[in-house]
Amino acid sequence: MAAEQDPEARAAARPLLTDLYQATMALGYWRAGRARDAAEFELFFRRCPFGGAFALAAGLRDCVRFLRAFRLRDADVQFLASVLPPDTDPAFFEHLRALDCSEVTVRALPEGSLAFPGVPLLQVSGPLLVVQLLETPLLCLVSYASLVATNAARLRLIAGPEKRLLEMGLRRAQGPDGGLTASTYSYLGGFDSSSNVLAGQLRGVPVAGTLAHSFVTSFSGSEVPPDPMLAPAAGEGPGVDLAAKAQVWLEQVCAHLGLGVQEPHPGERAAFVAYALAFPRAFQGLLDTYSVWRSGLPNFLAVALALGELGYRAVGVRLDSGDLLQQAQEIRKVFRAAAAQFQVPWLESVLIVVSNNIDEEALARLAQELVAVGGQPRMKLTEDPEKQTLPGSKAAFRLLGSDGSPLMDMLQLAEEPVPQAGQELRVWPPGAQEPCTVRPAQVEPLLRLCLQQGQLCEPLPSLAESRALAQLSLSRLSPEHRRLRSPAQYQVVLSERLQALVNSLCAGQSP
Amino acid sequence: MAAEQDPEARAAARPLLTDLYQATMALGYWRAGRARDAAEFELFFRRCPFGGAFALAAGLRDCVRFLRAFRLRDADVQFLASVLPPDTDPAFFEHLRALDCSEVTVRALPEGSLAFPGVPLLQVSGPLLVVQLLETPLLCLVSYASLVATNAARLRLIAGPEKRLLEMGLRRAQGPDGGLTASTYSYLGGFDSSSNVLAGQLRGVPVAGTLAHSFVTSFSGSEVPPDPMLAPAAGEGPGVDLAAKAQVWLEQVCAHLGLGVQEPHPGERAAFVAYALAFPRAFQGLLDTYSVWRSGLPNFLAVALALGELGYRAVGVRLDSGDLLQQAQEIRKVFRAAAAQFQVPWLESVLIVVSNNIDEEALARLAQELVAVGGQPRMKLTEDPEKQTLPGSKAAFRLLGSDGSPLMDMLQLAEEPVPQAGQELRVWPPGAQEPCTVRPAQVEPLLRLCLQQGQLCEPLPSLAESRALAQLSLSRLSPEHRRLRSPAQYQVVLSERLQALVNSLCAGQSP
Repeated sequence: MAAEQDPEARAAARPLLTDLYQATMALGYWRAGRARDAAEFELFFRRCPFGGAFALAAGLRDCVRFLRAFRLRDADVQFLASVLPPDTDPAFFEHLRALDCSEVTVRALPEGSLAFPGVPLLQVSGPLLVVQLLETPLLCLVSYASLVATNAARLRLIAGPEKRLLEMGLRRAQGPDGGLTASTYSYLGGFDSSSNVLAGQLRGVPVAGTLAHSFVTSFSGSEVPPDPMLAPAAGEGPGVDLAAKAQVWLEQVCAHLGLGVQEPHPGERAAFVAYALAFPRAFQGLLDTYSVWRSGLPNFLAVALALGELGYRAVGVRLDSGDLLQQAQEIRKVFRAAAAQFQVPWLESVLIVVSNNIDEEALARLAQELVAVGGQPRMKLTEDPEKQTLPGSKAAFRLLGSDGSPLMDMLQLAEEPVPQAGQELRVWPPGAQEPCTVRPAQVEPLLRLCLQQGQLCEPLPSLAESRALAQLSLSRLSPEHRRLRSPAQYQVVLSERLQALVNSLCAGQSP
Repeated sequence: MAAEQDPEARAAARPLLTDLYQATMALGYWRAGRARDAAEFELFFRRCPFGGAFALAAGLRDCVRFLRAFRLRDADVQFLASVLPPDTDPAFFEHLRALDCSEVTVRALPEGSLAFPGVPLLQVSGPLLVVQLLETPLLCLVSYASLVATNAARLRLIAGPEKRLLEMGLRRAQGPDGGLTASTYSYLGGFDSSSNVLAGQLRGVPVAGTLAHSFVTSFSGSEVPPDPMLAPAAGEGPGVDLAAKAQVWLEQVCAHLGLGVQEPHPGERAAFVAYALAFPRAFQGLLDTYSVWRSGLPNFLAVALALGELGYRAVGVRLDSGDLLQQAQEIRKVFRAAAAQFQVPWLESVLIVVSNNIDEEALARLAQELVAVGGQPRMKLTEDPEKQTLPGSKAAFRLLGSDGSPLMDMLQLAEEPVPQAGQELRVWPPGAQEPCTVRPAQVEPLLRLCLQQGQLCEPLPSLAESRALAQLSLSRLSPEHRRLRSPAQYQVVLSERLQALVNSLCAGQSP
């Protein structure tokens, strides 16, 4: 199983991205003659992040890529030899050199599924030694991806289905791949696009972006473009000097707004003209480099109206500071008035994009008013995936009501019969003194066989397909579980047999 | 300038790890005929993270690696073409294909230096178009590295110079490279080692680790190792069945501790024996899988005493849950009593390592009592690096008192004469109405020429050398600036000429 030659291969984690104690334990197992003992571990989390009642499962594609390429190279084994005791049996290192995941089987929640506390996101089984080495990298791949996807899903729920959400957190990300991962899984969780070009190239995430303040401040207004002429959008007729045309419009705009024609910054206008020359069909003005009202807005209108004369429609404007909501509302009024004044109806409805540290609270205020929002996810790692504490190999099912909304998830022993729709089940909620009964209208198995003895069982969905699954799953979740503040806790219950096993083990283990 | 063939090359950021608006602005500059205009930008932060008065500069080695390898490959240019307007002039893409950093010059604070708000960590100059493309990746590389290094430095200050600090945050890191970056710069900032094997392999960070709870729970006690015999440490004499020897010691230990010999968990003991067989010179017991007092501690003592009979000394124990300080203190008492009882003086002073969500507050309590601590850095990104707002190209100096401690940093115009030690300087503190005077005993230039026209000016220090610089720098910082809570703010002042320039620009720009 060689490393895949796919464009994402670079993004795959490497075999030595693991805690040293996984390697020292591997030697311990080997010395104890247990390297090939059958073993299984599960990854799950104990609490939903961000105070919510749900999470999204994500990171599986990265896990599969990692597992399929998993192989210790000579240099890796040599490095391990350099940090393990010098008298370690060379046969151990021969064992490491031969390791791969050809005996590893993985069951998993599909990417984009709803995940709840205690339900495994990943079940990994195979020889003890190799399964131990895999634990840290799989945790690293699943927990951050799921956290970011969940964060994105929450912001999407606040924004509603129609608003456009752009992720632009790369510059504050945790290192290069921290940023790549965040951009990828923000998209999976419900964002529309990312500013991160590499996420577009390697992961197929739609990318978006226009210009920053530095572009605006780099122009003084005295620059002379080598070719100031712009051809009409329809492609016919003579070109026009866009800067000159914008200057003509500026006078009308300033008169309309009650401003002096000297007030708007000439460098800002030159920057807008330069950008419009390069992107006549995608012109967006960044309004707050100088004064929004005395400079950014009139300069944008002048260039947008000049473009309009040539048959191009400006995309809109972006605000990156101040009271975003209040400014956006006032700008919308200006656009409406200018659309009427200059008889350009499309100007009424150009996009107003806002950015700058938008968290859930700010987004909630903004979402009711605006068309597009650029969010910088704020993340707090509150997941706590650990080794399984419920005994034995388990199966997991989602029990659904007659309206298709999830009622609860049920864990049972792998060997128990699959629960049937319409049948009454006796189940144990966590901490309950006695069981309760439930009659699900539908039953969905949660864990899909993903890798069997190292072989991929079915093609992985595309990132966009996983994104669609996430939105579908969220739409089916009942409002009391979906709400972001003080939601009703979603129950994960145990089958009677699993509960009995837990009880007997607890009784046996008590001191 | 081909990509370097060094072991860290994989860790380098890629050219397309940038915000799309850097590429769209590049096209805007190119269309405006300004691609080769001379440009400079600076990276700095506005507030110190974690409520402190200092930060450590870090990430420079990653920046240099990125810059030296910077080259857009055909696939990169094709991807950009796919997301830019279809009628973009092909000559723009030819320009991109030819780009590299051979005209880029970088001045920087050396890695491990103290950094203060407003003082550039990095000054990057070169042709406008390429410098714009570099902004996002350099921000990404510098800000996270500096944040993690600063966090580590704070924990080191709390722990004092002698305690051993082990970073083990990989499983909760932001993706694979987020983890690699965090491990690398935690070491730079003052940690002793990391659990992250890849950070050892690629970055030379010392790695450390022993065993986890899963190792302990995987043993039932009925396992029979293929070779239970351990040779004496001195290498001479017959081997001994370590499990049998530990069983003999267990009876004495239980009698000493007032426990029944059946109480300690046999699986835990088997796990300790297996680990000790693999690591007889580095045996460490993880005490809290079952009961610390009834199982972990007696099992550890039994195996440690069995090893001791063969001439091996156990390294110590680790606690991963509960009240770490209280348990550690009680365990130390048990070790002292057992050392006396069984006449093995070395047992008094074996390491007690604690881990589990150790933040600054917990560490402060622990540091006075314990010998080694495994920290999981908690990070909060509070830096806010932005484009420069002070005008012109600047130089930066650190003014030192007669005891060698930094008094303040001073920014001035690049063309001003270098301030001299012993001379009185008139400087402007931020927001002051009038200047103050200072007579520094020493003056240190802060920004070193690092890359000149794409050429490395001097070899980069090793990671360990940067780590040593960090500790040296911190040791010279005066206590009122070094303290972690409510520190005195460290002043960054402006020269008279720079202040005058700022004043004139502010006056000219006011509406």
